[in-house]
Amino acid sequence: MLDGDTPTKEILDLNRFDDRAARTFEPELADRIRRRRATFGASSVLFYEQPIEMVRARGAFMYDASGKRYLDVYNNVPSVGHCHPKVVEAIAAQAAVLNIHTRYLNRAVETYAEALLATFPAPLTNLVMTCTGSESNDLAMRIAQIGTGKRGFIVTETAYHGNTALVTEISPSSLRKRAPADFVRCVPAPLLRPGEDVAATFAAAVRSAAADLEAAGHGVAALIVDSIFSSDGIHADPAGFLKEAVEAVHVAGGLFIADEVQPGFGRTGGGMWGFQRHGLTPDIVTMGKPMGNGFPMGGVVTRPDLLAAFCEETGYFNTFGGNPVAAAAGKAVLDVIAEEGLIEHARSVGAAFLAGLRDLSAHEPAIGAVRGAGLFIGLDFVDPASGAPDPALSTHVINAMKERGILIGAAGLYGNTLKIRPPLCFSAADAAFFTDTLAAILGARA
Amino acid sequence: MLDGDTPTKEILDLNRFDDRAARTFEPELADRIRRRRATFGASSVLFYEQPIEMVRARGAFMYDASGKRYLDVYNNVPSVGHCHPKVVEAIAAQAAVLNIHTRYLNRAVETYAEALLATFPAPLTNLVMTCTGSESNDLAMRIAQIGTGKRGFIVTETAYHGNTALVTEISPSSLRKRAPADFVRCVPAPLLRPGEDVAATFAAAVRSAAADLEAAGHGVAALIVDSIFSSDGIHADPAGFLKEAVEAVHVAGGLFIADEVQPGFGRTGGGMWGFQRHGLTPDIVTMGKPMGNGFPMGGVVTRPDLLAAFCEETGYFNTFGGNPVAAAAGKAVLDVIAEEGLIEHARSVGAAFLAGLRDLSAHEPAIGAVRGAGLFIGLDFVDPASGAPDPALSTHVINAMKERGILIGAAGLYGNTLKIRPPLCFSAADAAFFTDTLAAILGARA
Repeated sequence: MLDGDTPTKEILDLNRFDDRAARTFEPELADRIRRRRATFGASSVLFYEQPIEMVRARGAFMYDASGKRYLDVYNNVPSVGHCHPKVVEAIAAQAAVLNIHTRYLNRAVETYAEALLATFPAPLTNLVMTCTGSESNDLAMRIAQIGTGKRGFIVTETAYHGNTALVTEISPSSLRKRAPADFVRCVPAPLLRPGEDVAATFAAAVRSAAADLEAAGHGVAALIVDSIFSSDGIHADPAGFLKEAVEAVHVAGGLFIADEVQPGFGRTGGGMWGFQRHGLTPDIVTMGKPMGNGFPMGGVVTRPDLLAAFCEETGYFNTFGGNPVAAAAGKAVLDVIAEEGLIEHARSVGAAFLAGLRDLSAHEPAIGAVRGAGLFIGLDFVDPASGAPDPALSTHVINAMKERGILIGAAGLYGNTLKIRPPLCFSAADAAFFTDTLAAILGARA
Repeated sequence: MLDGDTPTKEILDLNRFDDRAARTFEPELADRIRRRRATFGASSVLFYEQPIEMVRARGAFMYDASGKRYLDVYNNVPSVGHCHPKVVEAIAAQAAVLNIHTRYLNRAVETYAEALLATFPAPLTNLVMTCTGSESNDLAMRIAQIGTGKRGFIVTETAYHGNTALVTEISPSSLRKRAPADFVRCVPAPLLRPGEDVAATFAAAVRSAAADLEAAGHGVAALIVDSIFSSDGIHADPAGFLKEAVEAVHVAGGLFIADEVQPGFGRTGGGMWGFQRHGLTPDIVTMGKPMGNGFPMGGVVTRPDLLAAFCEETGYFNTFGGNPVAAAAGKAVLDVIAEEGLIEHARSVGAAFLAGLRDLSAHEPAIGAVRGAGLFIGLDFVDPASGAPDPALSTHVINAMKERGILIGAAGLYGNTLKIRPPLCFSAADAAFFTDTLAAILGARA
């Protein structure tokens, strides 16, 4: 798994792309892949056994070099729609005028900071702008450690929170050969099982992990989760279940970091932030991917006391963080979310999408649970007889969807969960097309 | 010090910005500062006791809200010139068409990767694209640790390499209350002293640090320096002096990481990369700030064997890294450097600038050493009687320069070194204006 997003079978493993493998491709495509492999080396990752050359994108659609159109049900970075003209215009206009760091006063930055902070509950009044969700989580972890005087973190067992050295330790899905560091404890994802109180079960696991960290001498600096549990397979229900775990971590002397890189900016349809669905106030909130609709930017929002304690220990300055072009992009994203009513849109289209997929699941025994919030939905493939996870069917569906012009990925501990996460401009007709296509693929297989 | 760039006296300390302090400002400026403090909290940093509101910039000049023009002799991010039209156009054009991650083939990314890698010596053929210099150094440190099986790092004592948790440990200038981690050893900056062999002295310090790390059980993963020793006060001469230290770290089983965030992309006038002045080939090269002329992007270039060893241990994916807009910005920067002959320009204008400052120093006993390479020059202020560092004079000059329309900062262990680092389009006339202004400020003081 990589970025907690995609089981390896949908990925072309370029480390095995030798001359023999190359012969199975069109010569020009083989050459393009060879060049990618030569430059990006072992870190190369290309989706699909036959990679796609993308040339343009707009709204919820992407187009490859042959002109083939794909409905994008996968990418959450271009959250208000690929190449949204308002965001593009904001970037172009500001880049032509001024692009500098935050050590001078500048209206673009100040306007954005105030607009963004206005979306947060009262105690969360300070913003540090970074360039990525990884930088945001790296900083948030240190703010939590200094603020509590403790060292430990609690995360879910398939979590992905980013790519720095520190954040990789709380991203079990990135570690290929070893467990996370000794100051990290992993708890199972909050699965909704019949007859079980998911809030109590999840809180009990957090409580036990906290006790374990305390016994090991680390203590708990923070519980960090994204409130939609993206890499764990999307776990949204019942709204509010997270509250008990957050209370448990507070009792243990730790903080709660809400990683809003995945659920944030309206995706879950219940408000701007995923944590709002759970009726709680985090101590620290981190942001990334959709913040600038593709312009590299991230942020940390927290209480003044926590930020002040951190800054007494360590100088923090982020050269690109809060540059006026990022601020302009970010402000355009907030404006588009408001003007186009994308939170309500995510809620209503997402609800219809979920209902349609559940209808399909009633007739398709290979579909297990379907769950989600707004335009973030998880759909499990299972063996109809045993109910066991069926990641092979995920792979089949992902590849068949690609042939039929739909981009989709998988997630979860077993990779058997379709991760349905389209740009927020996704329409009810797009949702119906996806559901119909899924029905056709599953039908053709039977 | 912050970012190794600026002694605190030139910075408005917003943590002390209370109502009483606010009364010393124009009401509108006080309000703007208050709002910045309210949003950015303790992490707020504004240059100058009376902060400047910047509204636009072009080439080597920035303009404040009153229309006052400033010659920028400080900012190296807009390296080919503020808001260079070719870079702005590349960003605007690509942002309107496609902005996505690197898991699809895309010509913008592939073209850029090949163009960038063509500037490196033979064994350095792999590129990982990130968003910042900090992300680049964080990754480079882990590549070095996994590649060597060792843990320790050697840095200079006033170094700044970035802001992640791991990179902060090798950035002594960021740590306010403690020493770097136990696996880090700091060596003095390579000062050029009369009658001393700087290559031998620096290599001896590195050798001793390596032995110390070995004795402590850490071993040496890498020596990491920027080859212009930016935060240490700019130490460039004699070209080649770094080679012996790099050989010493190789003998100790460690690697050499060249942090090109400061000297890279033509600034030192001797080639595209700072390490080229030293006649050596690094094992890993990291890039940031000037790479996209302000578009947030960074990179790590290394040997395929080192990258492969790292990727076997840990998945690495950077969502924004290598997006086609960054690739377009980066390609435009490379094109502008070539088309406008900026490497040769940096060499020739830098040489004339250095000569002019040295002429001035011959008549100004408060100026100590003047040194540098290309458009990266350090100028020490000293007490004429004792020769001791005079950071108070730095502060005076920085503030007086601001009044006369010039932006400049300081660096070095004592903060007594003017850090002269303008955009590369800086002209000979700009250099003369700076030198004349410096002469006038020092003359007015006498």
